[in-house]
Amino acid sequence: MMEFKTQLYLASKSPRRAKLLKQVNLKFKILEIDLVEEFYDGEYPVRTVKRLAAEKMELAKLKVRNGIIITADTIVVLNRKIIGKPKDKADAVRILKSLSNRTHYVYTGFAIYNSLTNKLITDYQKTAVIFRKLNIKEIKDYVNTQNPLDKAGAYGIQDFGAVFIKKVNGCFYNVMGLPLEKLYSYLKSIR
Amino acid sequence: MMEFKTQLYLASKSPRRAKLLKQVNLKFKILEIDLVEEFYDGEYPVRTVKRLAAEKMELAKLKVRNGIIITADTIVVLNRKIIGKPKDKADAVRILKSLSNRTHYVYTGFAIYNSLTNKLITDYQKTAVIFRKLNIKEIKDYVNTQNPLDKAGAYGIQDFGAVFIKKVNGCFYNVMGLPLEKLYSYLKSIR
Repeated sequence: MMEFKTQLYLASKSPRRAKLLKQVNLKFKILEIDLVEEFYDGEYPVRTVKRLAAEKMELAKLKVRNGIIITADTIVVLNRKIIGKPKDKADAVRILKSLSNRTHYVYTGFAIYNSLTNKLITDYQKTAVIFRKLNIKEIKDYVNTQNPLDKAGAYGIQDFGAVFIKKVNGCFYNVMGLPLEKLYSYLKSIR
Repeated sequence: MMEFKTQLYLASKSPRRAKLLKQVNLKFKILEIDLVEEFYDGEYPVRTVKRLAAEKMELAKLKVRNGIIITADTIVVLNRKIIGKPKDKADAVRILKSLSNRTHYVYTGFAIYNSLTNKLITDYQKTAVIFRKLNIKEIKDYVNTQNPLDKAGAYGIQDFGAVFIKKVNGCFYNVMGLPLEKLYSYLKSIR
């Protein structure tokens, strides 16, 4: 539905982000970028996700002459500590145990750049996710069958992980990797 | 993943409910039932959705000899008034205008019945949905392209309607028609 003066690009390998843009009828191409993400002790989560989205944008800009580019980065924060993607299955089990019966926060930082106007927007969204108590058997079953290794926090809210979540406070789609409502209104303003 | 001693049935015509049960790996058959839903002035929303789920269960029980049956009913409540499915496109526009820039509540009542034990559970879930301000052009575009006539409240949180929603407080999947986390844990206890 939304019309652009130039090609729209999503610079992300996440199939979930591509699915979300399709859900709101956007036509776009995927840009492959490969950022080595660095985390600094003491950096605030808001700063981290906006910085990582901006760093991804610097790489993405090198790949296209003209276009509107979207980048994003999602992290999970528990007790003010950043939880990234699990290193292996044992790490996924450890992460899910730590999320059990607790509230964590999902931050997605994003950047939108329009090469025609040279305009850049960076912003973020934060959502609280309240997990019910999980037992070790269901955690292990989940890790063995659902392949959560490519997901920050080791779960997918859009898969079987749904049954772990009592409540979400804030933007749901932010937890999947893009704050659709906020992103869409920025896209309208920048196109 | 969850094993049952008998066949699981979903007595609902909603393709969204079927999709949600598949998301959490449940194997089930669809039961077709056709309840004429009645609404009574002054009845509390909680009472209404639980009653409608129970009435659907009475019809569903006539259709199967043995099994575990799920029924559900979802309504949208704004200013304590129940909003059902729109009658036509003009009604859908009117409903979306009324939801603009406001918080409404989605109630899903559900029933689970196990014919082997004769055990019946009825319960509900309530979720707050906060809409941003919508303009009349985007409301009309939405109604003309997204076919919201089969949805309580005239929008789908899982389609383009995502861009209308600033925040959700509570169970997200409840808004789609089934409170997955609550339902799944009841299913575990009743199978």
